Parts: sequence; structure tokens; C-alpha cells
Amino acid sequence: MKSFSSAPGTLPRPLVITMGDPAGIGPEIVMSAVRQRPALLEQVVVACDVPTLRRACDLVGAKDGKPTTALLEIGDLDDWSRPPGNVLRVVQACARHERVPFGRISGTAGLAAAQCIAAAARWTLHGRTMAMVTAPVHKEALALAGLEHPGHTEFLQALAAEHAGVGVDRMPVRMMLGAPGLSTVLVSIHVSLRQAIEAVTFARVLETVRITAAHFSRCGMPNARIAVAGLNPHAGEGGLFGGEELEVIAPAIDQARSEGLLVSGPHPPDTVFMRARQGEFDVVIAMYHDQGLIPVKLLGLEHGVNTTLGLPLIRTSPDHGTAFDLAGTGRADPSSLLAAIDDAVRMGGARP
Amino acid sequence: MKSFSSAPGTLPRPLVITMGDPAGIGPEIVMSAVRQRPALLEQVVVACDVPTLRRACDLVGAKDGKPTTALLEIGDLDDWSRPPGNVLRVVQACARHERVPFGRISGTAGLAAAQCIAAAARWTLHGRTMAMVTAPVHKEALALAGLEHPGHTEFLQALAAEHAGVGVDRMPVRMMLGAPGLSTVLVSIHVSLRQAIEAVTFARVLETVRITAAHFSRCGMPNARIAVAGLNPHAGEGGLFGGEELEVIAPAIDQARSEGLLVSGPHPPDTVFMRARQGEFDVVIAMYHDQGLIPVKLLGLEHGVNTTLGLPLIRTSPDHGTAFDLAGTGRADPSSLLAAIDDAVRMGGARP
Repeated sequence: MKSFSSAPGTLPRPLVITMGDPAGIGPEIVMSAVRQRPALLEQVVVACDVPTLRRACDLVGAKDGKPTTALLEIGDLDDWSRPPGNVLRVVQACARHERVPFGRISGTAGLAAAQCIAAAARWTLHGRTMAMVTAPVHKEALALAGLEHPGHTEFLQALAAEHAGVGVDRMPVRMMLGAPGLSTVLVSIHVSLRQAIEAVTFARVLETVRITAAHFSRCGMPNARIAVAGLNPHAGEGGLFGGEELEVIAPAIDQARSEGLLVSGPHPPDTVFMRARQGEFDVVIAMYHDQGLIPVKLLGLEHGVNTTLGLPLIRTSPDHGTAFDLAGTGRADPSSLLAAIDDAVRMGGARP
Repeated sequence: MKSFSSAPGTLPRPLVITMGDPAGIGPEIVMSAVRQRPALLEQVVVACDVPTLRRACDLVGAKDGKPTTALLEIGDLDDWSRPPGNVLRVVQACARHERVPFGRISGTAGLAAAQCIAAAARWTLHGRTMAMVTAPVHKEALALAGLEHPGHTEFLQALAAEHAGVGVDRMPVRMMLGAPGLSTVLVSIHVSLRQAIEAVTFARVLETVRITAAHFSRCGMPNARIAVAGLNPHAGEGGLFGGEELEVIAPAIDQARSEGLLVSGPHPPDTVFMRARQGEFDVVIAMYHDQGLIPVKLLGLEHGVNTTLGLPLIRTSPDHGTAFDLAGTGRADPSSLLAAIDDAVRMGGARP
């Protein structure tokens, strides 16, 4: 992602960060991130429960020993023009809570997290923020809160579809995972490997390439070099180890090329990620979850960033969970969140 | 592989290196390796076509500018006791050739390569060498030479089975790939991903664990920590994304544990390689080709080593091919061959 054009010096619109599940490490990594990088105070607004974020600020402050960060509660993004001073601007985006217990799955916590996501998505869909960055939520807590969507991606997909007045089937999304020097977009995610093979269809591979190209184009890289991995060892070795490359993947690549996209493959899966890392490609389309996630996680879980492609908004998130066992200690590492913020700023800054 | 006990200062038996396909880079990387590491002259013997190796020596010498290396042709390994001096000992192990053309697939080249492998395997099976290291061969050249085995592994399996007087089905083998800091053993290799899923059976997973444990034990690591990867994303997440973990892999692990083996899993595939890299495991059993090869190749193709497990001999090889386009230039990189030699010496030195 290094080659996205950099953001302008002054950001016209803020970046909104959601606090995530208040029982997890989300609020603490948000506070750690802005305390480690004070320049962020001028750029971000946090959609949160303010008392929860204040508690996180105290916890992190007790560890890092720096002066406390003042939280300035603004009623709405209309107040954004106000000069910031050395404060973090926050919006109370859910019911006010006093002491959500750490490390416990609850519908209360899930509802607070969901309301913050909904508020941030609404602002971003209306163009009032440049992008949104989401701290981790807990799937079971969201379910207990009655949310019918298992996670961020499906929830944002539904909100975006509603905003656009279309069904979710008209708003296909893909997950992009990035580590330093390697980005991969997945054709399918949370299905068995057998089902993942069935999901490798002409339509789905082509759609993945199109969504990927559209994303990079909007982010200032209209000539992103997209590599498509094969499904089988050695990309099938001419049909010897499986026919999906010849029957499905190569035709989808041909179609994408005929649409003017800079796409190559199907490449042998065992070397395509190494080649991308060496600079030959900007992004690799992976045929299934582990094909893409094994190399990305190997290259640096602590800086992994998850980006949702296909939506009419920019959304990134750290590539880790709520870490309930660490919540409340003030010690959670904000590196992945900072990487997600950097990516969102680069993408949002380049996007018209 | 760092923790294998180191080889004794004086090696009682030589290490044999095969030259590989004479039309490829094999002879040149053998000469580059011994010229970069002159201490090897005391330890190794090369099974080769001597004129081909001399040509390689000249090519490499023209590039590295060092004094030429004398080749001492010995009739047989019985001559091994002779004091070496500053020479490389070689055995003419095939018909003598003068000028095999570079970069061309031929039965002549394939036959020469196969004869060198057969000679080296014979010595090693009879305990006259500590281990064998094989330079790359070309599968099509072997086929043109009439060899019925597609590559080293199957050829060595057949030779070892014949030596032991059993059928090849009684001599199951597995491929281990190693890069610095990560070793992985594959349940299956060159089959389609669909067929690879079918190969994930109780018997085959258990056999892979047993072969792996036996190998590490013989090499001085009886307590090697063996991690078994799952097949599906998140190792199936309790059956939600596929049942192979619960039905097949976990029972095989239980059985291996009941046999006293130090084995854990099934672990989520996307993080198990990262964890092994961080030192939590000594080796990862991968359920299919790309699951294991993507992380190994990402960590360093130039130092990748391929080890055949399951045979009554130690055999390693560099993890690259004949590179016909580079053959004859004297510029091929011997790093992977040197890593293969180091691993073979460590394993052979530790082995009784």
C-alpha cells in the first residue's frame, strides 16, 4: 500500500474511529494510538461511549506516564470546524455507560459497539468523514444485542445497501488483508475448504478482480498490478493437478483483461506471494482464506490491516480481535490500529 | 533445524553430492559451493560426469576469479582414506560425456543424472556415506532416459525398497521443506486441491506424524515439538467450517499422542506457521502442498531445503530446479545447495 498517493497536509474531513466492544481492548488501543501519535488529534474523531473512552485513557495513561489526554465531546460533526487544541474530539454515539465489565461477553457491550459502527457508517456514507476505522467487536456480543449481522463486514454491507436503496446482493464485498509489503484479496472467507473450492467460479473470480481494481483505482492507483493465484499446486500444471485454472480462473482473467484491467495469472500459489512481496505485483487475489492469510500473518500480525472492498466508503480495521484477556490492563499494542489508520488516511486522501 | 546437534569435527564418512542434470545449473552450483566453502573439500565426494564437472569448474572460476580447483578422480569410495590436499574428490558415476549442451532437455543428460543418483544412493544405503545431497534434475529428461520414476523422491523410494527387499508401499515417504526458522512436512504433494482434501485421512495424517517424529528422533531431537495444521479456515472452528479436523485430524493426533509423540493441533492454519517461526514448534505438518509451501517460500527461497523423510538414508536437496536459462553462465547461486549440505551434515552427524 506504500504507493498510494499521500494525503494532503490539511485534511478537509475527519477520519472517524469506532471504539469497538467496550469490554475488549478497542477503547484502550484507540487511546494508545492517539497518545503515541499526537498529530492524530487534529485528524480524528472517535465514535464511542465517552465514559468508556475516558476510563481507557486513564488505564493507558497509568502505563505510559504521559499527561492525560482531554476528551472534547462534540455534539455532532458540525462542530468539526472548531479549533482543536490538544484534545481528542469524541462523539457519544450510543447510550451512556458507566462501567462495562472487562472481558465479558454481553448484549449491552455489543449494542454499544453496534451503535457506534452505525453512526460512523452513516457519517461516512454521507461523505462527512473521509474514511472509517473500526476497533474490534465480539461476534457473540453483537448476536446477544440482537444484531442479525455476524460482523462488521456484513453490517456495513447492509447499511451501505440501504443507503444506496438496493439489496445486499447488489453490494458485493471482499476482504483485503494487508501486511507491510503484501496485500491480498480473498475470493471467499469463512467456509470449509471444500466449499471454498466450489466458490471458485468464473463470476466470483471476475467480480473479485473488478472490485479490487475499482478499489485501487479510486485510491489513486488505476494501474495497480493485480496477480491472480491459482487454486491447485503449480496452478494445476497445465491441467495435471486440477482443472479450475484452465476452466474457470484463466477465462475470468481473460475477461478482466478485455475490460482493460492490469491482471495476470493464474500464478503458482506457492511463489506468487513471494513475488508480490518482491515488488512484482501490487495485490494478490487469493482463491481461499488460508492461501491469502498464511503469508499475510507470517509477514506481521502486529501490523496487519483488514480493508473492506466493494462498499461506497473506505473502512479499515486492525487484523486482530477484542483480546478480552488483555482488556483493562492498558497494555494492548496499538500497532495494527495505527497501520489501519495510516492505510485509511492514504486511501481517503487519494479518493475524490 | 538449528537445534540438531552439530556434526563431529572429523567426519568418519563422506557426504556424497550428485551433480544433477548436466544441462542445468547443478554442476555449477556444486563447484560454486565448494569454492565458496573450501572446508567442504575434506568432507564431500561428488558423484558426477567428471568432464562436465570440470567444465563447470572453469565456468565458475571465470566468474569468481579464484585459483582453479583440482578434481581428483577416485575409483571408488575405498580411496576415501587418501589424504585430500586442496582437491575435490569426484567419482565418474555415469558414462563419460564431453559437451552436454546447456539448457536442453535430453535423454542423455537425464540418464547421466539418474546414474549418479543411483550410485550415490547405493553408497548411502550401504552406509558408506553419511548422507546424500542431490542437485536438481529435470523430470522430462529423466522420462526421456526411460526412468519410470518422475523425480528423486520416487526413484530413491524404489531403490531403498529394493535394498530392503520390500515393496514401495512398505517404504512410505514424505517431503519436508525447510527455510530458515521454519520446517514443514506435507501430507500430500502433487495432486489437485480436491484430491489433497481426500488424502487427509486418519491413516495418512498419523503416518505423516510418525515419519516426522522418527526422522527428528534419529537426528537427535527425540522431543521435537510437532504441530499439526488444520485443513479448514480456523481449523474448522468447531465443525462450523468443515468436519475434517474433528473427524480425522484430531483422532490421528490423539493416536500419535498415545504413542508418546509430542504432537499438538489441529491448529488454525493461518497462524501455525507464524507460531512455529516464533519458536513454539519445531515442525509443522501441512495438510496440502501450498499450505506448507507458501510460508516456506515466503521466508526464503534462496535458502530452501527439501528433505526426504521415511527412507533409511538422509537425503536433502536445494529447493529449486535446473534453471536451464542460467546454465553455462557460472552465475547460479549455490546458497540453497549450501543450506542443503549444512542440513545433511547436521542430520548425518547426529545420526548413529
